[in-house]
Amino acid sequence: MTRGFASDNNAGAHPEVVEAVARANTGHTRAYGDDPWTASAVARLREHLGERAEPFFVFGGTGANVLGLQAVMRPHEAVICSEFAHINVDECGAPERYVGCKLLGIASADGKLTPELVRARISGVGIEHHVQPRVVSVSQSTEYGTVYAPDELRALADLAHAHGMLLHVDGARLANAAASLGVPLRAITADAGVDVLSFGGTKNGLLGGEAVVFFDPAPARNFRFVRKQGMQLASKMRFVAAQFEALLTDELWLRSARHANAMARRLEAAVRGIPGVRVTQPVAANAVFATLPAEAIPVAQDAFFFYVWDERRSEVRWMASWDTTAEDVDQFAAAIARAVASPR
Amino acid sequence: MTRGFASDNNAGAHPEVVEAVARANTGHTRAYGDDPWTASAVARLREHLGERAEPFFVFGGTGANVLGLQAVMRPHEAVICSEFAHINVDECGAPERYVGCKLLGIASADGKLTPELVRARISGVGIEHHVQPRVVSVSQSTEYGTVYAPDELRALADLAHAHGMLLHVDGARLANAAASLGVPLRAITADAGVDVLSFGGTKNGLLGGEAVVFFDPAPARNFRFVRKQGMQLASKMRFVAAQFEALLTDELWLRSARHANAMARRLEAAVRGIPGVRVTQPVAANAVFATLPAEAIPVAQDAFFFYVWDERRSEVRWMASWDTTAEDVDQFAAAIARAVASPR
Amino acid sequence: MTRGFASDNNAGAHPEVVEAVARANTGHTRAYGDDPWTASAVARLREHLGERAEPFFVFGGTGANVLGLQAVMRPHEAVICSEFAHINVDECGAPERYVGCKLLGIASADGKLTPELVRARISGVGIEHHVQPRVVSVSQSTEYGTVYAPDELRALADLAHAHGMLLHVDGARLANAAASLGVPLRAITADAGVDVLSFGGTKNGLLGGEAVVFFDPAPARNFRFVRKQGMQLASKMRFVAAQFEALLTDELWLRSARHANAMARRLEAAVRGIPGVRVTQPVAANAVFATLPAEAIPVAQDAFFFYVWDERRSEVRWMASWDTTAEDVDQFAAAIARAVASPR
Amino acid sequence: MTRGFASDNNAGAHPEVVEAVARANTGHTRAYGDDPWTASAVARLREHLGERAEPFFVFGGTGANVLGLQAVMRPHEAVICSEFAHINVDECGAPERYVGCKLLGIASADGKLTPELVRARISGVGIEHHVQPRVVSVSQSTEYGTVYAPDELRALADLAHAHGMLLHVDGARLANAAASLGVPLRAITADAGVDVLSFGGTKNGLLGGEAVVFFDPAPARNFRFVRKQGMQLASKMRFVAAQFEALLTDELWLRSARHANAMARRLEAAVRGIPGVRVTQPVAANAVFATLPAEAIPVAQDAFFFYVWDERRSEVRWMASWDTTAEDVDQFAAAIARAVASPR
Repeated sequence: MTRGFASDNNAGAHPEVVEAVARANTGHTRAYGDDPWTASAVARLREHLGERAEPFFVFGGTGANVLGLQAVMRPHEAVICSEFAHINVDECGAPERYVGCKLLGIASADGKLTPELVRARISGVGIEHHVQPRVVSVSQSTEYGTVYAPDELRALADLAHAHGMLLHVDGARLANAAASLGVPLRAITADAGVDVLSFGGTKNGLLGGEAVVFFDPAPARNFRFVRKQGMQLASKMRFVAAQFEALLTDELWLRSARHANAMARRLEAAVRGIPGVRVTQPVAANAVFATLPAEAIPVAQDAFFFYVWDERRSEVRWMASWDTTAEDVDQFAAAIARAVASPR
Repeated sequence: MTRGFASDNNAGAHPEVVEAVARANTGHTRAYGDDPWTASAVARLREHLGERAEPFFVFGGTGANVLGLQAVMRPHEAVICSEFAHINVDECGAPERYVGCKLLGIASADGKLTPELVRARISGVGIEHHVQPRVVSVSQSTEYGTVYAPDELRALADLAHAHGMLLHVDGARLANAAASLGVPLRAITADAGVDVLSFGGTKNGLLGGEAVVFFDPAPARNFRFVRKQGMQLASKMRFVAAQFEALLTDELWLRSARHANAMARRLEAAVRGIPGVRVTQPVAANAVFATLPAEAIPVAQDAFFFYVWDERRSEVRWMASWDTTAEDVDQFAAAIARAVASPR
Repeated sequence: MTRGFASDNNAGAHPEVVEAVARANTGHTRAYGDDPWTASAVARLREHLGERAEPFFVFGGTGANVLGLQAVMRPHEAVICSEFAHINVDECGAPERYVGCKLLGIASADGKLTPELVRARISGVGIEHHVQPRVVSVSQSTEYGTVYAPDELRALADLAHAHGMLLHVDGARLANAAASLGVPLRAITADAGVDVLSFGGTKNGLLGGEAVVFFDPAPARNFRFVRKQGMQLASKMRFVAAQFEALLTDELWLRSARHANAMARRLEAAVRGIPGVRVTQPVAANAVFATLPAEAIPVAQDAFFFYVWDERRSEVRWMASWDTTAEDVDQFAAAIARAVASPR
Repeated sequence: MTRGFASDNNAGAHPEVVEAVARANTGHTRAYGDDPWTASAVARLREHLGERAEPFFVFGGTGANVLGLQAVMRPHEAVICSEFAHINVDECGAPERYVGCKLLGIASADGKLTPELVRARISGVGIEHHVQPRVVSVSQSTEYGTVYAPDELRALADLAHAHGMLLHVDGARLANAAASLGVPLRAITADAGVDVLSFGGTKNGLLGGEAVVFFDPAPARNFRFVRKQGMQLASKMRFVAAQFEALLTDELWLRSARHANAMARRLEAAVRGIPGVRVTQPVAANAVFATLPAEAIPVAQDAFFFYVWDERRSEVRWMASWDTTAEDVDQFAAAIARAVASPR
């Protein structure tokens, strides 16, 4: 099917990933992660995230976020996050239902939290009528395609730690952030004071697979039980692990993320000049947010399907993927130009 | 690695499954199941399970069981099941935690429930101090490798329905049961009165993937939400669906299950004559349960790894897989004979 | 101890309530609500709320709200409420934890919802990534002491019902609202289209006790189980029921609520003239909200303890109770005047 | 109404308790337990249970058990208990639903656990597929009216602690056990190694009220949040505390429990000689279990209502209360004799 700009999870898997899965399909091995592929993929992750990293593979992003949070929270505690956070709006209430916690959403125009914004939500501490702030959760890159620099994360981590809280990163697009910043993965995780990480794989070219990573041994100790009870333990774990092995081999993670980011920037450049199109967020990762005339949207969607982000503002979201080509971008930009010129 | 008899999920994936995944890896498609692969796989499942079947793909077996139950239960209700049921002993309390329900385990030497056994646990109905029986859950084939005939399921379904209850089947090895019985899948699901089914894929040669199937439209209506909130919605759903498509093409499901069953029977025949080895359960599906001298067990395990089922009784479990060969069986039987002859 | 203005639940119980409890303390009766006191109190509530009312007594207000919501919701559904709602800020996340649902808080200066405000939060319907709006919950009187007129409730009920949603009323101070409006309890419950009600007792002079009331038989049918499992079934139920009997005898509920409201208005009148004191909300029920110079607050608190509502705005909350006297009010107003005149 | 033998919670409250409530009904005090009555009742409990005791008042017995367990468990952990335990059969699945844990029920003819019985259920430790035993829970006195001696509790505590587990006591009838044993409350709680206690009040003559007591500061630290979120925080706490104060004043707890126990023994003595009546359990506390001819049961129930415990065995349960009189017992025994002589 045609490649589009609707979502990076509309793309398929990178061929190197599929080949790795096929290669791992040999003979018998112990199920549930007690296998050499898993051991190797864990070691690879530690090369990137540091020796203190305790990675656990899970099936999907919601599971990674929910179980990572569950492992470090009690149900009377709360998560402070952007009101746009995936955990707050796109997981059908899974954190509330399965962690039991409350999410305290903060309005933020670019989807990023700052220490000032977070500090204002730390209240009611020690008072039993109120949920107790326990985790600051940020998305990297954010739902708006913006990116936290290492020192921005460090400032949030320091604030969190000063209040006995933890910093959680929903890294469904962590690779895009690192590629955008030009820093190693460590710089925006372990070295920035992150405590719990959802390390994304699916949106960066896997068939399916994410990792929960702790940077403290305590929650990691019980996490095997949390994962199993939490319905996220793959029996044929080697096939998840092999995908991560591929992702971390020859910098596939970085090649794919860099490419997707570059395609987003190319798209931004191509649409900037179109009258009536306004790019609404800095294009740091693989997303382009823009407003365009409402009547032009369905015309453009006929060419390449994409989603409207905010109906009232006529704002749309365009996502580039590991497999987006320069031709895709140019054709899409041309289609947008035509749609704006000849709306319905 | 060497093929063994520890578990059917220690086997890899059938090559036809991996090829199907590779074929599905083309271009972009809508995520989360709104894609042609999923539509096709659902249609295939309906060919086997009847038009009323409402299938939903999920990641794993625990997720299939938990979410299938959650969709039809309220937390004050209970599941009547064998005390050996996977949901009762092998899912780390996931049903209690995530459905909120209580499991009422019944002792049963062969892992099978009968109407008499179930009837004795239907008590306290209408009394608010007691959990209210809502679901009878059976495993097909059972954790002991035994199998329910269609009329045995029908009798359980009739009893359940007469009490306003439902029949749930944990079909992680449903294919092995159908192959053993020589009946179509419908005969032991839709046509036997089953209400909710976990249709197993992983243990029958998939990389990973299960389906929850309802035979009533009511719970199906809300299940999309239950699945998403329940952390079991694959974003790149096509790769789960493509596996099921392969499984249901050219009767791969039946070829694989028949083969595994045949290998189990071959193993049974080969070990029956060994002095000190006693097969403890009828070998109907792909499992062989046997007692053997305790000192022989580690010796046999050195040859091919397998699990001790019941330490006190010196009972072991041997599982055949879709890829078990006759040579594997013969070598393993010989190893057992040697181990019994020369224990540690 | 001195009577103050901190909270209506700092007051004790009305003597008629304590006498009723003492009178009910005679001989044995069936536990758990199968007793004549409970039958009688239920009948009394039906006189006030209509024959369709299905009342169930519970221990406390959090229990009433949580279990009333749980009875009509599935965990993937959401409650639309004011961001100031007691369920949103003062129940330590109990709805999220025990119902599993998400609360969608709406900013509202006077704590009241309008159809316009609610309509803007009904979104994502039918999309599995988003929680599904199911309940509109309002507090009557609100946390800001404001009151919904019958037609305002009816408009919210109509909107809710048009979207397949329900209207829930947290009526911890329902009596104060009815007294303020001069309408019977029916007018702001059954007759206004309310579906689920927390009928408050404790804040209106009981020792402790609330009622969950459904106006539809369906959720009521299972509620006995929800209540028992939900840890809110009193074994010696007669002592809760007897309190409600007293509350509904000789209009004690109305006498007490009217009195508390009158005392709040008296306080409002008394402080309005004090320079630097500004009453910030209409005084419809038994609460007075006011801003006063920050330095005056601790001085006034020394005289009569009360809570600061919003530190940043220097806004305080003063609550009148069934037992507040005119002298209490006058002394308190004088103390405020002195504090403002001679702050710290 | 007539006093009967159905349940000790069919009795009313002791007059000294009602008087204490009336006395506490004076003026205003801080809500939610920050009041002098609560401070005093906590001090009284510490006199009986030791200085390390951390008591928290709650509304009811189910709440006490569930929240006490929740405070010390993670959802993947399990409780080992008698299959007859109140938490296992009489709380409508509340522990599973609200703690998330699994209960591992042990068959035990007299309702008591022994180290041998418990040891056999400690299995699967460290294996993520299985729930992890965390708590041994016993009822004191048991659901069968039997009693644990201090050394029996100590043996269970030692076993639990040796496995990193805790000992929980459901002490809904703790007073009856202490009275039966002739030991102070400390001897069967703090001094026996108990970690978490539900200290019963309601069944021993309160209007309603229980206490959760921890003997370790760690779970106590967070328990205020667990209690509030768990819907068990009384706003007018003084009225619960005042009841406990009364219970612990002039040994009311002991007088009432001793009396109830004596009445049970009197009943046992009176029915022992009746042909066809067989007392089935040692009468240590305030319960008498007996079998009698099935046809005699409804006739006896006409005289004084009571419950059939086990229909199949024609076993009934008779409970004595703090207010049972010798005349009640004698009349009841005579009614039983008549019923047995002239069954229906």
